[in-house]
Amino acid sequence: MTQSDLMYFDDLEPGQSFPLGPKQVSRDEVIEFAAEFDAQPMHLDEEAGKASILGGLAASGWHTCALMMRMIIDSFLDRMASEGGPGVDFVSWKRPVLADDTLSGQTTILEARRSQSRPLIGIVRFRVELFNQRGELVLESEYPSMIRARNPAGATA
Amino acid sequence: MTQSDLMYFDDLEPGQSFPLGPKQVSRDEVIEFAAEFDAQPMHLDEEAGKASILGGLAASGWHTCALMMRMIIDSFLDRMASEGGPGVDFVSWKRPVLADDTLSGQTTILEARRSQSRPLIGIVRFRVELFNQRGELVLESEYPSMIRARNPAGATA
Repeated sequence: MTQSDLMYFDDLEPGQSFPLGPKQVSRDEVIEFAAEFDAQPMHLDEEAGKASILGGLAASGWHTCALMMRMIIDSFLDRMASEGGPGVDFVSWKRPVLADDTLSGQTTILEARRSQSRPLIGIVRFRVELFNQRGELVLESEYPSMIRARNPAGATA
Repeated sequence: MTQSDLMYFDDLEPGQSFPLGPKQVSRDEVIEFAAEFDAQPMHLDEEAGKASILGGLAASGWHTCALMMRMIIDSFLDRMASEGGPGVDFVSWKRPVLADDTLSGQTTILEARRSQSRPLIGIVRFRVELFNQRGELVLESEYPSMIRARNPAGATA
Protein backbone atom coordinates (compact mmCIF):
# COMPACT_ATOMS: atom_id res chain seq x y z
CA MET A 1 0.00 0.00 0.00
CA THR A 2 1.34 3.42 -0.89
CA GLN A 3 0.64 6.65 0.97
CA SER A 4 -1.78 7.70 -1.72
CA ASP A 5 -4.01 4.69 -0.99
CA LEU A 6 -4.55 5.91 2.56
CA MET A 7 -7.80 7.64 3.50
CA TYR A 8 -7.24 10.85 5.43
CA PHE A 9 -9.56 13.03 7.50
CA ASP A 10 -10.09 15.10 4.34
CA ASP A 11 -11.70 12.09 2.66
CA LEU A 12 -14.31 11.50 5.37
CA GLU A 13 -17.72 13.01 5.94
CA PRO A 14 -20.84 12.32 8.00
CA GLY A 15 -23.07 9.64 6.53
CA GLN A 16 -20.24 7.63 4.97
CA SER A 17 -20.58 3.97 5.83
CA PHE A 18 -18.26 0.96 5.78
CA PRO A 19 -19.47 -2.66 5.79
CA LEU A 20 -18.31 -4.99 8.58
CA GLY A 21 -17.99 -8.78 8.38
CA PRO A 22 -19.31 -11.32 7.82
CA LYS A 23 -17.41 -13.07 10.60
CA GLN A 24 -18.48 -16.40 12.07
CA VAL A 25 -17.74 -16.93 15.75
CA SER A 26 -16.78 -20.53 16.40
CA ARG A 27 -17.47 -22.45 19.58
CA ASP A 28 -13.73 -22.89 20.15
CA GLU A 29 -13.09 -19.16 19.83
CA VAL A 30 -15.87 -18.36 22.31
CA ILE A 31 -14.44 -20.76 24.88
CA GLU A 32 -10.80 -19.77 24.27
CA PHE A 33 -11.48 -16.05 24.77
CA ALA A 34 -13.59 -16.69 27.86
CA ALA A 35 -11.03 -18.99 29.43
CA GLU A 36 -8.43 -16.24 29.15
CA PHE A 37 -10.46 -13.13 29.95
CA ASP A 38 -14.05 -13.78 31.07
CA ALA A 39 -14.27 -17.20 32.71
CA GLN A 40 -17.98 -17.20 33.54
CA PRO A 41 -19.91 -20.48 33.11
CA MET A 42 -22.23 -19.20 30.34
CA HIS A 43 -19.17 -18.31 28.21
CA LEU A 44 -17.43 -21.65 28.81
CA ASP A 45 -20.07 -24.34 28.81
CA GLU A 46 -23.08 -25.12 26.62
CA GLU A 47 -25.28 -26.38 29.46
CA ALA A 48 -24.46 -23.44 31.70
CA GLY A 49 -25.23 -21.12 28.80
CA LYS A 50 -28.60 -22.77 28.22
CA ALA A 51 -29.44 -22.45 31.92
CA SER A 52 -28.58 -18.72 31.86
CA ILE A 53 -30.63 -15.85 30.48
CA LEU A 54 -28.32 -15.92 27.43
CA GLY A 55 -29.93 -19.15 26.23
CA GLY A 56 -26.81 -20.95 24.99
CA LEU A 57 -23.01 -20.89 24.90
CA ALA A 58 -22.53 -17.15 24.45
CA ALA A 59 -19.50 -15.02 23.60
CA SER A 60 -18.24 -12.65 26.27
CA GLY A 61 -19.37 -9.11 25.49
CA TRP A 62 -15.69 -8.16 25.41
CA HIS A 63 -15.08 -10.88 22.84
CA THR A 64 -17.80 -9.34 20.68
CA CYS A 65 -16.04 -5.97 21.07
CA ALA A 66 -12.71 -7.51 20.06
CA LEU A 67 -14.36 -9.09 16.99
CA MET A 68 -15.90 -5.72 16.16
CA MET A 69 -12.39 -4.22 16.21
CA ARG A 70 -11.13 -7.00 13.93
CA MET A 71 -13.92 -6.32 11.45
CA ILE A 72 -13.22 -2.56 11.59
CA ILE A 73 -9.52 -3.17 10.83
CA ASP A 74 -10.34 -5.50 7.96
CA SER A 75 -13.00 -3.21 6.50
CA PHE A 76 -11.27 0.16 6.47
CA LEU A 77 -9.01 1.04 9.40
CA ASP A 78 -5.91 -0.58 7.94
CA ARG A 79 -6.13 1.87 5.04
CA MET A 80 -7.02 4.94 7.11
CA ALA A 81 -4.50 7.39 8.59
CA SER A 82 -5.65 6.55 12.11
CA GLU A 83 -3.98 7.77 15.28
CA GLY A 84 -6.19 5.65 17.55
CA GLY A 85 -8.87 6.80 19.91
CA PRO A 86 -9.38 7.92 23.52
CA GLY A 87 -12.13 5.44 24.35
CA VAL A 88 -15.72 4.53 23.56
CA ASP A 89 -18.84 6.56 24.31
CA PHE A 90 -20.86 3.41 24.99
CA VAL A 91 -21.22 -0.23 24.06
CA SER A 92 -24.63 -1.89 24.16
CA TRP A 93 -24.86 -5.67 23.95
CA LYS A 94 -28.40 -5.89 22.65
CA ARG A 95 -28.65 -9.66 22.29
CA PRO A 96 -26.38 -12.62 23.08
CA VAL A 97 -23.84 -13.68 20.45
CA LEU A 98 -24.09 -17.46 20.48
CA ALA A 99 -21.46 -19.95 19.32
CA ASP A 100 -21.54 -20.37 15.52
CA ASP A 101 -23.41 -17.07 14.97
CA THR A 102 -22.24 -15.01 12.00
CA LEU A 103 -21.85 -11.27 12.58
CA SER A 104 -22.03 -8.50 10.03
CA GLY A 105 -23.03 -4.87 10.01
CA GLN A 106 -21.59 -1.46 9.36
CA THR A 107 -19.75 1.54 10.74
CA THR A 108 -21.19 4.94 9.90
CA ILE A 109 -19.57 8.35 10.36
CA LEU A 110 -21.70 10.54 12.66
CA GLU A 111 -19.45 13.63 12.86
CA ALA A 112 -16.12 14.81 11.44
CA ARG A 113 -14.44 17.93 12.81
CA ARG A 114 -10.95 19.37 13.11
CA SER A 115 -9.18 19.11 16.45
CA GLN A 116 -9.01 22.50 18.17
CA SER A 117 -5.55 21.84 19.58
CA ARG A 118 -3.80 19.73 16.92
CA PRO A 119 -3.88 21.18 13.39
CA LEU A 120 -3.14 17.91 11.59
CA ILE A 121 -5.75 15.83 13.42
CA GLY A 122 -9.45 15.37 12.78
CA ILE A 123 -11.87 13.88 15.28
CA VAL A 124 -14.33 11.47 13.67
CA ARG A 125 -17.21 9.91 15.59
CA PHE A 126 -18.24 6.48 14.38
CA ARG A 127 -21.37 4.43 15.08
CA VAL A 128 -21.18 0.64 14.80
CA GLU A 129 -24.07 -1.77 14.46
CA LEU A 130 -23.58 -5.53 14.35
CA PHE A 131 -26.29 -8.04 13.49
CA ASN A 132 -26.47 -11.83 13.65
CA GLN A 133 -27.40 -14.12 10.75
CA ARG A 134 -31.09 -13.60 11.54
CA GLY A 135 -30.75 -9.84 11.12
CA GLU A 136 -31.12 -9.20 14.85
CA LEU A 137 -29.11 -6.33 16.30
CA VAL A 138 -26.51 -7.71 18.74
CA LEU A 139 -24.19 -4.75 19.36
CA GLU A 140 -24.33 -0.96 19.12
CA SER A 141 -21.41 1.32 19.92
CA GLU A 142 -20.25 4.87 19.27
CA TYR A 143 -16.68 6.05 19.58
CA PRO A 144 -14.41 8.94 18.60
CA SER A 145 -11.27 8.35 16.56
CA MET A 146 -8.33 10.56 15.64
CA ILE A 147 -7.56 10.64 11.93
CA ARG A 148 -4.66 12.54 10.35
CA ALA A 149 -5.44 15.25 7.83
CA ARG A 150 -3.43 15.81 4.65
CA ASN A 151 -2.92 19.49 5.41
CA PRO A 152 -3.08 21.63 8.54
CA ALA A 153 -6.40 23.30 9.30
CA GLY A 154 -6.84 26.48 7.26
CA ALA A 155 -4.15 25.58 4.70
CA THR A 156 -5.02 25.64 1.03
CA ALA A 157 -4.24 22.35 -0.66
CA MET B 1 -17.71 -22.91 46.63
CA THR B 2 -21.14 -23.37 48.18
CA GLN B 3 -24.18 -21.21 47.53
CA SER B 4 -23.69 -19.50 50.88
CA ASP B 5 -20.30 -18.16 49.79
CA LEU B 6 -21.93 -16.23 46.96
CA MET B 7 -22.48 -12.49 47.26
CA TYR B 8 -26.01 -11.44 46.30
CA PHE B 9 -27.54 -8.06 45.51
CA ASP B 10 -28.57 -7.90 49.18
CA ASP B 11 -24.90 -7.85 50.19
CA LEU B 12 -23.95 -4.87 48.02
CA GLU B 13 -24.18 -1.14 48.63
CA PRO B 14 -22.81 2.08 47.15
CA GLY B 15 -19.26 2.84 48.19
CA GLN B 16 -18.16 -0.78 48.47
CA SER B 17 -14.90 -1.34 46.64
CA PHE B 18 -13.04 -4.39 45.34
CA PRO B 19 -9.30 -4.39 44.50
CA LEU B 20 -8.19 -5.33 40.96
CA GLY B 21 -4.83 -6.83 39.95
CA PRO B 22 -1.94 -6.58 40.01
CA LYS B 23 -1.65 -8.02 36.50
CA GLN B 24 1.46 -7.63 34.35
CA VAL B 25 0.92 -7.36 30.60
CA SER B 26 3.67 -9.15 28.75
CA ARG B 27 5.02 -8.17 25.35
CA ASP B 28 3.92 -11.52 23.92
CA GLU B 29 0.35 -11.06 25.19
CA VAL B 30 0.17 -7.56 23.69
CA ILE B 31 1.28 -8.83 20.28
CA GLU B 32 -0.85 -12.00 20.40
CA PHE B 33 -4.06 -10.10 21.18
CA ALA B 34 -3.32 -7.46 18.55
CA ALA B 35 -2.53 -10.02 15.86
CA GLU B 36 -5.92 -11.61 16.41
CA PHE B 37 -8.14 -8.58 16.99
CA ASP B 38 -6.44 -5.20 16.50
CA ALA B 39 -3.61 -5.55 14.00
CA GLN B 40 -2.40 -1.96 13.98
CA PRO B 41 1.37 -1.34 13.82
CA MET B 42 1.64 0.32 17.26
CA HIS B 43 0.15 -2.79 18.89
CA LEU B 44 2.38 -5.21 16.96
CA ASP B 45 5.82 -3.65 16.72
CA GLU B 46 8.10 -1.81 19.15
CA GLU B 47 9.47 0.62 16.57
CA ALA B 48 6.03 1.46 15.18
CA GLY B 49 4.82 2.00 18.75
CA LYS B 50 7.70 4.37 19.48
CA ALA B 51 6.95 6.30 16.30
CA SER B 52 3.27 6.67 17.28
CA ILE B 53 1.73 8.99 19.84
CA LEU B 54 1.55 5.99 22.19
CA GLY B 55 5.33 6.09 22.70
CA GLY B 56 6.04 2.35 22.66
CA LEU B 57 4.59 -1.09 21.98
CA ALA B 58 1.12 -0.51 23.42
CA ALA B 59 -1.76 -2.86 24.22
CA SER B 60 -4.93 -2.49 22.17
CA GLY B 61 -7.54 -0.62 24.19
CA TRP B 62 -9.76 -3.68 23.78
CA HIS B 63 -7.00 -5.83 25.24
CA THR B 64 -6.94 -3.54 28.29
CA CYS B 65 -10.72 -3.98 28.56
CA ALA B 66 -10.36 -7.77 28.36
CA LEU B 67 -7.69 -7.66 31.08
CA MET B 68 -10.00 -5.49 33.19
CA MET B 69 -12.66 -8.19 32.85
CA ARG B 70 -10.15 -10.86 33.90
CA MET B 71 -9.21 -8.85 37.00
CA ILE B 72 -12.91 -8.31 37.83
CA ILE B 73 -13.59 -12.05 37.59
CA ASP B 74 -10.58 -12.88 39.76
CA SER B 75 -11.36 -10.20 42.34
CA PHE B 76 -15.05 -10.74 43.01
CA LEU B 77 -17.29 -11.65 40.08
CA ASP B 78 -16.67 -15.39 40.32
CA ARG B 79 -18.22 -15.32 43.79
CA MET B 80 -21.09 -12.96 42.96
CA ALA B 81 -24.56 -14.04 41.77
CA SER B 82 -24.08 -12.21 38.48
CA GLU B 83 -26.46 -12.40 35.53
CA GLY B 84 -24.19 -10.40 33.23
CA GLY B 85 -24.71 -6.90 31.95
CA PRO B 86 -26.27 -5.06 29.02
CA GLY B 87 -23.18 -3.06 28.07
CA VAL B 88 -20.84 -0.32 29.27
CA ASP B 89 -21.69 3.33 29.81
CA PHE B 90 -18.22 4.41 28.66
CA VAL B 91 -14.60 3.36 28.51
CA SER B 92 -11.86 5.96 28.65
CA TRP B 93 -8.30 4.95 27.76
CA LYS B 94 -6.50 7.71 29.64
CA ARG B 95 -2.93 6.67 28.90
CA PRO B 96 -1.26 3.94 26.82
CA VAL B 97 -0.72 0.55 28.45
CA LEU B 98 2.80 -0.38 27.35
CA ALA B 99 4.31 -3.87 27.16
CA ASP B 100 5.48 -5.05 30.59
CA ASP B 101 3.31 -2.52 32.46
CA THR B 102 1.63 -3.82 35.61
CA LEU B 103 -2.02 -2.85 36.11
CA SER B 104 -3.94 -2.60 39.34
CA GLY B 105 -6.86 -0.59 40.62
CA GLN B 106 -10.34 -1.04 41.97
CA THR B 107 -14.02 -1.39 41.17
CA THR B 108 -16.39 0.71 43.27
CA ILE B 109 -20.18 0.42 43.51
CA LEU B 110 -21.83 3.68 42.45
CA GLU B 111 -25.50 2.67 42.71
CA ALA B 112 -27.52 -0.40 43.69
CA ARG B 113 -31.25 -0.57 43.00
CA ARG B 114 -33.91 -3.20 42.43
CA SER B 115 -35.02 -3.89 38.87
CA GLN B 116 -38.51 -2.52 38.24
CA SER B 117 -39.48 -5.42 36.01
CA ARG B 118 -37.68 -8.43 37.51
CA PRO B 119 -38.24 -8.97 41.25
CA LEU B 120 -35.18 -11.17 41.82
CA ILE B 121 -32.71 -8.89 40.03
CA GLY B 122 -30.78 -5.88 41.25
CA ILE B 123 -29.04 -3.40 38.97
CA VAL B 124 -25.62 -2.39 40.26
CA ARG B 125 -23.53 0.31 38.61
CA PHE B 126 -19.79 -0.16 38.93
CA ARG B 127 -16.93 2.24 38.31
CA VAL B 128 -13.50 0.84 37.41
CA GLU B 129 -10.17 2.63 37.60
CA LEU B 130 -6.93 0.98 36.50
CA PHE B 131 -3.46 2.41 37.12
CA ASN B 132 -0.01 1.47 35.88
CA GLN B 133 2.99 0.75 38.10
CA ARG B 134 3.75 4.48 38.27
CA GLY B 135 0.31 5.19 39.71
CA GLU B 136 -0.89 6.84 36.49
CA LEU B 137 -4.55 6.32 35.58
CA VAL B 138 -4.76 4.28 32.36
CA LEU B 139 -8.44 3.27 32.19
CA GLU B 140 -11.76 4.49 33.55
CA SER B 141 -15.08 2.78 32.89
CA GLU B 142 -18.58 2.61 34.31
CA TYR B 143 -21.05 -0.17 33.62
CA PRO B 144 -24.32 -1.63 34.94
CA SER B 145 -24.52 -5.25 36.02
CA MET B 146 -27.46 -7.52 36.91
CA ILE B 147 -27.03 -9.30 40.25
CA ARG B 148 -29.52 -11.81 41.70
CA ALA B 149 -31.14 -11.02 45.02
CA ARG B 150 -31.76 -13.60 47.75
CA ASN B 151 -35.44 -12.71 48.01
CA PRO B 152 -37.95 -10.99 45.74
CA ALA B 153 -38.39 -7.26 46.18
CA GLY B 154 -40.66 -6.49 49.14
CA ALA B 155 -40.33 -9.94 50.71
CA THR B 156 -39.24 -10.19 54.33
CA ALA B 157 -36.23 -12.44 54.78
